[in-house]
Amino acid sequence: MNPIALPLGDPCGIGPEIAAKAWSARGANDIAPFFAIGDVRAIEAVWPGPVVKITDPADAEKVFPTALPIIAVEGIGAFVPGQPTIDGAQSALQSLELAIGLTRSGAASALVTGPVSKAQLYKIGFTHPGQTEFIAERCGVAEQNAVMLLASAALRVVPVTVHIPISAVPGALTTELILAKCRAAAKGLTRDFGMKSPRIAIAGLNPHAGEAGMIGREEITIIQPAIDMLRAEGIDCFGPVPPDALFTARARTKYDLALCMYHDQALIPLKALYFDEGVNMTLGLPIIRTSPDHGTAFDIAGHGKADPSALIAALNMAASAAHFRATAL
Amino acid sequence: MNPIALPLGDPCGIGPEIAAKAWSARGANDIAPFFAIGDVRAIEAVWPGPVVKITDPADAEKVFPTALPIIAVEGIGAFVPGQPTIDGAQSALQSLELAIGLTRSGAASALVTGPVSKAQLYKIGFTHPGQTEFIAERCGVAEQNAVMLLASAALRVVPVTVHIPISAVPGALTTELILAKCRAAAKGLTRDFGMKSPRIAIAGLNPHAGEAGMIGREEITIIQPAIDMLRAEGIDCFGPVPPDALFTARARTKYDLALCMYHDQALIPLKALYFDEGVNMTLGLPIIRTSPDHGTAFDIAGHGKADPSALIAALNMAASAAHFRATAL
Repeated sequence: MNPIALPLGDPCGIGPEIAAKAWSARGANDIAPFFAIGDVRAIEAVWPGPVVKITDPADAEKVFPTALPIIAVEGIGAFVPGQPTIDGAQSALQSLELAIGLTRSGAASALVTGPVSKAQLYKIGFTHPGQTEFIAERCGVAEQNAVMLLASAALRVVPVTVHIPISAVPGALTTELILAKCRAAAKGLTRDFGMKSPRIAIAGLNPHAGEAGMIGREEITIIQPAIDMLRAEGIDCFGPVPPDALFTARARTKYDLALCMYHDQALIPLKALYFDEGVNMTLGLPIIRTSPDHGTAFDIAGHGKADPSALIAALNMAASAAHFRATAL
Repeated sequence: MNPIALPLGDPCGIGPEIAAKAWSARGANDIAPFFAIGDVRAIEAVWPGPVVKITDPADAEKVFPTALPIIAVEGIGAFVPGQPTIDGAQSALQSLELAIGLTRSGAASALVTGPVSKAQLYKIGFTHPGQTEFIAERCGVAEQNAVMLLASAALRVVPVTVHIPISAVPGALTTELILAKCRAAAKGLTRDFGMKSPRIAIAGLNPHAGEAGMIGREEITIIQPAIDMLRAEGIDCFGPVPPDALFTARARTKYDLALCMYHDQALIPLKALYFDEGVNMTLGLPIIRTSPDHGTAFDIAGHGKADPSALIAALNMAASAAHFRATAL
């Protein structure tokens, strides 16, 4: 298996530190070879360990046992951890572009992205809502077919709608959108998690899933028709489940993935249960892409306190997906 | 302290069984004396233990060590666990009415209500959304001042809006409503939990709490003004907190209660974390009222499988509140 590409994200955030810590923990966590892409100074500023510059991903595996391999994206301007700059945002975007290209070409087996600052990226003319949409576009995938899976060891969720106000959620929900997201999710679980017939629980939108229309009708008019069609296609799904009943310890044993109607319906239980190990995976792309489900944490960057658990989980999930894709060929 | 009144709820649900099991567990769980109110047949049908009819709550304490005291509300018609009837709903409502009266008079120190079926109650002309609103009305308290607190040993939540569709939530949220609910919650934590200066976290409505207006503006126009006013009144509150960041293990150490904008924002994390011990407490009433946060579970009634944990937690929370109210006098 080719190595995993890890663009460091914003060089002034915690990305460089957690990348170095993940490399240090490679043995204990059985992490497959990866190489960083980014400003070498960003690593050196926060970590005294061995770093070796490479120019070809094929050299990463040889270097990995003894040093952190990095494809250098030369940074310019002053560099201080925790103090983001325009130059840093440029470096983050350039690293991401390079990483996408190397993964699309197959030189890297998967893409694991470090945290970026959307606010910083907007300052350099970035117009996508986030990295995910940017990666989808670079892969030629329409936004509604790129699915954000958030996962931990024991819970996987996909929000059907994401970064929109609560007031816009009911209007944005359509049977077609639920179909597109659920199909991509089901296919992704088979392709990247090796599940032959994944079980998908589909949440209601309203309290008590609308209580037969007494507390909202979207379950009847939008969600149930989608479930009926998905089941007719052979997808093993059920619902609409009352949202507050979907994440109990008992309920979680009955599905492989919960399809949620809005951002916080998915993210609240995930983070309540498993904050430190959350992984964001994009399904529906030609490439494998994961990232740790946290931000740049500029406030603690350079203090040595950043926790690499989520990045380690993201690296391991990406390697596992690469394995499933390779063995399914 | 006077005994706690426990109306059994629907006699065909699991209320009678969990009441009997809670009595059986009185020693191990240090449960204060309580007496049941309801159809004696409902207990006898599911439990072989000792039951003693009383007519005066003052006799409950004497009976409690050796038998379950019950004020009998004579049932009529056939009785089968798991098969709800109109007569059963009448019995449930009559028991509740009697229990409210005994608690308001002081003969009972607190009211702990067993689970009722709203669908059954509607059939006998009950017009309230649920028991809570009925109890509030009987206590002469306006609905917006009666606050539904959902609690477990480690998390307390209050939803500002409750059983309304998601599409109606943004329109129902007002600064005034948040003020009313937060004031009642703060007062309740002081009066019934003995907290001198409770810390209240106030959730945002939208993903990332609106991200400075990028994903919805209710945080700016409705929630923040309420927080500013509450703080000016001396209530120790903060927010609006991004909803998915509010229930992480770390975040939960920073507040005594989370004020949530809608039903599932509060109920999803509570049930994900602590399903079996959820307690529903109504703050803002002249009386103490708790209930187990689950339904009648007609499907398992009479099978001996019902878990009394939530009822035991409800009884203990009611007794604790009665203690705090008594010692504050």
